[in-house]
Amino acid sequence: MSKRIVYQLVAPLHLTAGPAEVERRQEFLRAHAAPGFVLEAWPTRQGRAAIESDTDALLASPEILAGVCRAQKGGADAAIIGCFGDPALEAARESVDIPVVGAGEAAMLLALQLGYRFSVISPIAQGAGRRDAHVRRLGLESRYASTRGLGIDIASMANGSVDPRAAVIEAGRKCVEEDGADVLVLGCMSFSFLGFTGEAQREIGVPVVNPVIAALKAAETILAHGLHFSRRSWPKAAPKPHPQSIEE
Amino acid sequence: MSKRIVYQLVAPLHLTAGPAEVERRQEFLRAHAAPGFVLEAWPTRQGRAAIESDTDALLASPEILAGVCRAQKGGADAAIIGCFGDPALEAARESVDIPVVGAGEAAMLLALQLGYRFSVISPIAQGAGRRDAHVRRLGLESRYASTRGLGIDIASMANGSVDPRAAVIEAGRKCVEEDGADVLVLGCMSFSFLGFTGEAQREIGVPVVNPVIAALKAAETILAHGLHFSRRSWPKAAPKPHPQSIEE
Amino acid sequence: MSKRIVYQLVAPLHLTAGPAEVERRQEFLRAHAAPGFVLEAWPTRQGRAAIESDTDALLASPEILAGVCRAQKGGADAAIIGCFGDPALEAARESVDIPVVGAGEAAMLLALQLGYRFSVISPIAQGAGRRDAHVRRLGLESRYASTRGLGIDIASMANGSVDPRAAVIEAGRKCVEEDGADVLVLGCMSFSFLGFTGEAQREIGVPVVNPVIAALKAAETILAHGLHFSRRSWPKAAPKPHPQSIEE
Amino acid sequence: MSKRIVYQLVAPLHLTAGPAEVERRQEFLRAHAAPGFVLEAWPTRQGRAAIESDTDALLASPEILAGVCRAQKGGADAAIIGCFGDPALEAARESVDIPVVGAGEAAMLLALQLGYRFSVISPIAQGAGRRDAHVRRLGLESRYASTRGLGIDIASMANGSVDPRAAVIEAGRKCVEEDGADVLVLGCMSFSFLGFTGEAQREIGVPVVNPVIAALKAAETILAHGLHFSRRSWPKAAPKPHPQSIEE
Amino acid sequence: MSKRIVYQLVAPLHLTAGPAEVERRQEFLRAHAAPGFVLEAWPTRQGRAAIESDTDALLASPEILAGVCRAQKGGADAAIIGCFGDPALEAARESVDIPVVGAGEAAMLLALQLGYRFSVISPIAQGAGRRDAHVRRLGLESRYASTRGLGIDIASMANGSVDPRAAVIEAGRKCVEEDGADVLVLGCMSFSFLGFTGEAQREIGVPVVNPVIAALKAAETILAHGLHFSRRSWPKAAPKPHPQSIEE
Amino acid sequence: MSKRIVYQLVAPLHLTAGPAEVERRQEFLRAHAAPGFVLEAWPTRQGRAAIESDTDALLASPEILAGVCRAQKGGADAAIIGCFGDPALEAARESVDIPVVGAGEAAMLLALQLGYRFSVISPIAQGAGRRDAHVRRLGLESRYASTRGLGIDIASMANGSVDPRAAVIEAGRKCVEEDGADVLVLGCMSFSFLGFTGEAQREIGVPVVNPVIAALKAAETILAHGLHFSRRSWPKAAPKPHPQSIEE
Repeated sequence: MSKRIVYQLVAPLHLTAGPAEVERRQEFLRAHAAPGFVLEAWPTRQGRAAIESDTDALLASPEILAGVCRAQKGGADAAIIGCFGDPALEAARESVDIPVVGAGEAAMLLALQLGYRFSVISPIAQGAGRRDAHVRRLGLESRYASTRGLGIDIASMANGSVDPRAAVIEAGRKCVEEDGADVLVLGCMSFSFLGFTGEAQREIGVPVVNPVIAALKAAETILAHGLHFSRRSWPKAAPKPHPQSIEE
Repeated sequence: MSKRIVYQLVAPLHLTAGPAEVERRQEFLRAHAAPGFVLEAWPTRQGRAAIESDTDALLASPEILAGVCRAQKGGADAAIIGCFGDPALEAARESVDIPVVGAGEAAMLLALQLGYRFSVISPIAQGAGRRDAHVRRLGLESRYASTRGLGIDIASMANGSVDPRAAVIEAGRKCVEEDGADVLVLGCMSFSFLGFTGEAQREIGVPVVNPVIAALKAAETILAHGLHFSRRSWPKAAPKPHPQSIEE
Repeated sequence: MSKRIVYQLVAPLHLTAGPAEVERRQEFLRAHAAPGFVLEAWPTRQGRAAIESDTDALLASPEILAGVCRAQKGGADAAIIGCFGDPALEAARESVDIPVVGAGEAAMLLALQLGYRFSVISPIAQGAGRRDAHVRRLGLESRYASTRGLGIDIASMANGSVDPRAAVIEAGRKCVEEDGADVLVLGCMSFSFLGFTGEAQREIGVPVVNPVIAALKAAETILAHGLHFSRRSWPKAAPKPHPQSIEE
Repeated sequence: MSKRIVYQLVAPLHLTAGPAEVERRQEFLRAHAAPGFVLEAWPTRQGRAAIESDTDALLASPEILAGVCRAQKGGADAAIIGCFGDPALEAARESVDIPVVGAGEAAMLLALQLGYRFSVISPIAQGAGRRDAHVRRLGLESRYASTRGLGIDIASMANGSVDPRAAVIEAGRKCVEEDGADVLVLGCMSFSFLGFTGEAQREIGVPVVNPVIAALKAAETILAHGLHFSRRSWPKAAPKPHPQSIEE
Repeated sequence: MSKRIVYQLVAPLHLTAGPAEVERRQEFLRAHAAPGFVLEAWPTRQGRAAIESDTDALLASPEILAGVCRAQKGGADAAIIGCFGDPALEAARESVDIPVVGAGEAAMLLALQLGYRFSVISPIAQGAGRRDAHVRRLGLESRYASTRGLGIDIASMANGSVDPRAAVIEAGRKCVEEDGADVLVLGCMSFSFLGFTGEAQREIGVPVVNPVIAALKAAETILAHGLHFSRRSWPKAAPKPHPQSIEE
Repeated sequence: MSKRIVYQLVAPLHLTAGPAEVERRQEFLRAHAAPGFVLEAWPTRQGRAAIESDTDALLASPEILAGVCRAQKGGADAAIIGCFGDPALEAARESVDIPVVGAGEAAMLLALQLGYRFSVISPIAQGAGRRDAHVRRLGLESRYASTRGLGIDIASMANGSVDPRAAVIEAGRKCVEEDGADVLVLGCMSFSFLGFTGEAQREIGVPVVNPVIAALKAAETILAHGLHFSRRSWPKAAPKPHPQSIEE
């Protein structure tokens, strides 16, 4: 019997980029899924058009968490949080019993199997300190070369008005030549749904990890293995009797 | 002329513990403030009674951020986020121009000046992994001994029905004797407003940092020094035209 | 069209444990493979019965490397080196163009997605220093709790005369309770082919990663993603004109 | 009742730069002190004109320690060691019961609250390795970007014949643009008493921490909090019956 | 009575570079040995001409291990493995009772006594990631500046057709000026037997560690001190009854 | 021609323990020196009887530095600072041109070649935090297990009234069994001159490094190799025109 995996988008893309973009992303996921896994891409019900700051992440997080909770309630077998910064990941693991995969975490851990040192290519010009802290939190800093930002607006990529390919390839080359990276990770899901990692790795000459695919495969792996995350790390969040909480 | 500092509580304590508790905490802050600083303790308008998980932190964060934004709009000179886990801290720094201090960060950095190795005493039984990641994110792990949790309900402390003193002292002793800590940090604001760090350090024999006071003094320090946090670390979050965002 | 993955065993198990054991392991792999992947388990042509020391690993390595080279020559799409210590992994990546997965590396990276801190359960009583160095080489030490060894002979497990289940569960409990592990990794392939990780995680209460399955899924992930390891990390080994070299 | 804090200068500035310079520094301290704290700047009785090497630090240390001991004997409530390298800090903590603050330590810990990564601007051209070791000793290396030295003579700054402002600003810009610093720390007290951190941060665009003010505020914080350093870290130094020791 | 130390070469240099080169290296060792130590340089019986990759190291390792075992059987008091990558070092320590020194390990540890931060100069153009992992495995990464590779063929150096001096000096200067190294380590034994570290340090202006001499002195130190490596780290490898193993 | 090495004692042992003890230590050194090296043990001219705190180290440092300067002036080829805490080591390297070896540094680096993880046995009951900081400064913390203190008075050992052997062996066993050490380092020179490391390693079963011998051999190594420490790390301390400085 098939396993259902919900890929939780972190913006109301049906409103901001249109339903066709949601559909296109769902198709991308389905095209990369292993047989036996059914993928659904769910936009958030409301929120900003993209996550480009910690503020955006914070404001999107309750909706992301609500989405993951709905995914479990609706019978999904696993959920993926579709944002490189892994917003709401810890809370989601506390709140549901199905495995929850973070796209940034999954992509960086896959990169470690492909080369000694990785760099992240970010759409945001000034996000390196934030990403360094993310990497440090994961304990991976001795394998991390750099984050380079492009200064490209995510919403413009999501609706197709800007094509980041050339900028990604140029930044990737600098990560390799100046920062010592052996492998690259796309640090943005909108890049990733453009499906040009193959082209990018041919141009740059090093592996380029797509976090959408990395997260999808991590979810498949955890389900196929019959694993679950540790309740010692993320104890079940106790329900709390307050009207403003998300469940109500 | 006096400087105003808003201490942003992370729960609607006026509803959950009553207005007197808010008042009591404000008095505690005022009693510890240097001359020339006026302290106000603000509860959130709504939310859960306490932050005891990443889920709680996530759900409280939009209200915390809104509070810090209101503080700036209301003319405050600095804000403190009154929770050891530093929820919404990065987002708040992106969103306002006044300094924003995190109580956990301030307390751990103060502890580093008082001994070689610190431990954190947490109300929550199972929060060590979460705190380890917090410490790692801050890059302080080589000075960190342990986190020990008590398994005490925060709301019960906040409303006075449970007194954690004996449990804190017992856990503190174990941090020192078994984990090698030289200095302790209270990892919960409800502990901290009970004002027993003096008693605890006499009993345990090592310094005990109160994150309420550490955060207050950090805010005073930053204001007196004329400093501000770095916009390279926390770039100004761009306003975004979406109706569901917090500003509207 | 199906992808072929060769799981390179690190001992001549057909000689030491018998062809049925090789067959049994191949069936275990096939039972866990995703549709579209065909798994083959290849014993080495000669060598010691098991890898229980750096000496064993060294002596087995030329045969392991030769096996991976034969796998590529025979049309395999990827290879897995079936030993927790990842012997010959770097050399294999230099020597072939197909992806090569190390079971230890894959298992530890999967564990990082399941909990804050992992421990390894090893059959060998005294292997902790060696494993620590392996973890340090991978840059993962800040997420690593401990290695605990059982003092069980691998060959006896491989031929079925010793059942390690009870010992694994007991050691796993100590990793959790005394060393602070949130997730466990089986540090031996003979444990892993017994297929009791489900039972172990029920008993111990934390996730237990099976490196056989972790490696298999890592290989599937890399192939499905169209990735390859970085030639900057593992440059193509130049052929060398000396009669004793492996090619001849 | 007021608290007295002795700021222990690390050179006989009354002899080398003149009593007016001592007076000027004391006024600078008083201008930045919170109400209720009385600051005194004490030169050492003898010694070299400035600390620009480990040799200078070593030779100045007995006088610094003697000064801190005299401060306690004279009724001071806390002492600050006014040198970025924190000479005699550990010994002073062993030798007295009042809190002793190190200016370098206090400044770097304050910087951590203002940005992800800090650099130090040093007067000495070749001091980076020494500063790296200081940072490593404090366990802060993952938040540290670089030290840049100017090659400026400290005594010339102290007596006013050289103005380092332009050089500091230029070096600070390189720390930010080339080394990735988000926040700067002045690594010299003579820089710091010139009081141009406000100007420097406007010019460079990132926060600039003044270690004089950082140390002063750390001392105020520790006193206001009722804290003391840990006797487990710095046990009380036993008096020793030898005629050449400092006490006699 | 004299102590005998076998310097185990890692290639059949008598075949590939000629017996005179083996003799020349033995003379170099003898010229640097302390009185009371007799040095012998032993080529491997077969193998590739040089170790320039992990593949080369792997293929050479059984012969290196066999050489160390023969050295003990022949009455040697210690053995040195003469390759910067320390191939077969762990296995050799498991397999014999005499001390075994790794040239890379000995050289890097000596460098730490001569300056804050070291770089390695490698003949191989692309070996930095491999060397980084070696350094990380040893736990020395916070003292490590960089590895720079020259792209010079080791066999050509060994037979005298290429002289690497100018290239080493140029790379060394870059390590110092661009990477922040204070001390250099030659990362290749063929460089090292040319005996130009004195010239190199005069030209570059920082100490240059010769791993041949470092290893020789480490072996002399361990013997003079009456030390041995720890059996807890490298337990005695159990003999195993399989015909293909090295002993037969 | 012989090379002269001065072993600089850090106390006026001729006064406090008597000239015979100085003589005895010099004989110990000579008994362990390689042919061609002449060892002299020099007490300081004045000072406390032993270094048991940072205060002791600080107060002894000017005399230690003066001794190293006199050693160079008197024609010594190298100097050793005979204290595990390496007092005055950085300053001495700035002040003279001959190599200066620190006994603690040399011993810990030798230990790294003998096992994966080392512990230090200290006479002082409460010195672990101080030693941890020393290890962190050297960048060796990932190979460091623990420091255990005995609470034994150094002067009593130096004059022979207390024999620490049994206590050292008991503490060493705990380092191995409870802290995971594979190799031990004696953290006190008075222990070390008793010459019982052979006995200790037989009793405890792991190597025990004697810092006296480690430092002696490090000095011989540096001289035999023709090395010097890096002037980039320890630039020549400029002479300074002040009457109280040590030179006058």
